[in-house]
Amino acid sequence: MRITALAGGVGGARFLRGLLHHLERTGDTDAELTIIGNTGDDITLFGLRVCPDLDTLLYTLGGAVHEGQGWGRADESHHVAEELVALGAQPTWFSLGDKDFATHIYRSQLLGQGMPLSAVTTHLAARWGLPDRRVTLLPMTDTPVETHVVVEQGGGPEAIHFQQWWVRHQAALPAERFVVAGLDRATPAPGVLDALRTADVVLLPPSNPVVSIGIILTVPGVRDALRGARAPVVGVSPLVGGRPVRGHADVCLETIGVASTSEAVAGLYADFLDGWLVDETDPMAGRTRPVVLARPLLMSSVGTAADIAGAALGLGRRLAAKGTPA
Amino acid sequence: MRITALAGGVGGARFLRGLLHHLERTGDTDAELTIIGNTGDDITLFGLRVCPDLDTLLYTLGGAVHEGQGWGRADESHHVAEELVALGAQPTWFSLGDKDFATHIYRSQLLGQGMPLSAVTTHLAARWGLPDRRVTLLPMTDTPVETHVVVEQGGGPEAIHFQQWWVRHQAALPAERFVVAGLDRATPAPGVLDALRTADVVLLPPSNPVVSIGIILTVPGVRDALRGARAPVVGVSPLVGGRPVRGHADVCLETIGVASTSEAVAGLYADFLDGWLVDETDPMAGRTRPVVLARPLLMSSVGTAADIAGAALGLGRRLAAKGTPA
Repeated sequence: MRITALAGGVGGARFLRGLLHHLERTGDTDAELTIIGNTGDDITLFGLRVCPDLDTLLYTLGGAVHEGQGWGRADESHHVAEELVALGAQPTWFSLGDKDFATHIYRSQLLGQGMPLSAVTTHLAARWGLPDRRVTLLPMTDTPVETHVVVEQGGGPEAIHFQQWWVRHQAALPAERFVVAGLDRATPAPGVLDALRTADVVLLPPSNPVVSIGIILTVPGVRDALRGARAPVVGVSPLVGGRPVRGHADVCLETIGVASTSEAVAGLYADFLDGWLVDETDPMAGRTRPVVLARPLLMSSVGTAADIAGAALGLGRRLAAKGTPA
Repeated sequence: MRITALAGGVGGARFLRGLLHHLERTGDTDAELTIIGNTGDDITLFGLRVCPDLDTLLYTLGGAVHEGQGWGRADESHHVAEELVALGAQPTWFSLGDKDFATHIYRSQLLGQGMPLSAVTTHLAARWGLPDRRVTLLPMTDTPVETHVVVEQGGGPEAIHFQQWWVRHQAALPAERFVVAGLDRATPAPGVLDALRTADVVLLPPSNPVVSIGIILTVPGVRDALRGARAPVVGVSPLVGGRPVRGHADVCLETIGVASTSEAVAGLYADFLDGWLVDETDPMAGRTRPVVLARPLLMSSVGTAADIAGAALGLGRRLAAKGTPA
């Protein structure tokens, strides 16, 4: 069975770690998982290319993530960052640990040699044993793109990097809109469209629908591939009780004028969504278009994440058996 | 008093730390020291620009060097390097600590923004308080140059990077000659020629006469500036008992067909050398052309290095008072 998933950072990574756990505990070891990761969060810091979402996916699936943070490496030291502060280097608001720096140094070295990001990501995935688990991680595009946030800053609207808004300002700076710089010349990375077209099930983890999944959907060709996919597309709502479990999805939704409800988020995917997993407390429970399944959606452990991923996968399989969406 | 010194790595840095110690203990706090550092050792590792000699000078004068090694930072960890090994990055034979990595990251960032190496070095020097001590560190050139070593490798002569020969092969691979890649388009960094022309004393520390001092002398204009300097030029022999105190100067001298004697090394500087400090056991003791002063030359502590530097400076002052070389 070929599973293809779109994913942002922490939420997507935890969901997909749960999915792998589910596949392992059900003995479904033939399943192949292709992950299409968001690269809109990517940023160049200290001259090094940092891909926060791809790295969170690698570290989480590789068993090396800092569990408390949800991102970065466990057991990290920060000697490089401390020395950069002593040197007067900017910015100081983005935390990078020493082992994490090695990832960015190696990635930047390979990119500097002309290797596309997708090939670089294959190298990094090998370090975390992903090929042995039949997992392929693809960046959504090899074209450098960056999500910017248009904010009001005294003199008028100004576009700042997404990370500056998200990390430095904790999404508290009123945002007017999101723009993706570089998108006009972006094409899907090799394998992305094929993975969507040939999948048996396509999953949308409970990643941020605006700045993670939403950004992947803006890559030319991706949305059309989802619309034309032969496989059912099953999503997991990122909202429980009308609020995101983590992150600032509600602020992002408000910025684009969409309500923080599972129904409104499903509406963003209306043209390709076949199944939708919502929390058991969600008012959408029982709805049939898309086919809604209600389950407890708090990923409080690998086991509960595996339950949620298993439910989403099961819904996808049932929809495929029924012939939806053909 | 304006002192200008040419310098390589460990030996030069220890001598110049001694010089500053000497100036401080003699209350000579008005003296200005300009150091022209060798950049032929520079190498790009993991996409980062590493300047071993400049860094050894910075760390040593900044009080942060690893005393046992003579290079790199004291109290270093190696988490970045360990992770780079796990990632399969090459090479693995050049040791870089975490704090040291920060220097290379910051330098590479600034170089990547188009800042010349001399301006980058000014930034790095500020972190180590050099301006407060009236010390200016200049790279010999802003042009990227690299010393290569032509070695016999099975199929014929092959040019390898100096660091590969020096660090990886410990200078044990028979060398045919040294070549400086990029030298044809190199010009002295801003301030280099002025520092030589306007100095009251020019010092040559006991750095490697072939691959440190010798490389600086190959930068177009530098040798002429030394020949035309109004100040006496005083050197310190790197040889004690016919052998280098440290490093592989004897191997380097043999490669260029020069004997490992203080006299032969002085011969390399014959066109501009006015004073020459040799070890008390050296057969040159008592010679008058150049004016030879014999002193114990083992820099076993900051104090003994200060004694040696003080003796070299004193010789320079006496020669200046006598009107040599005018």
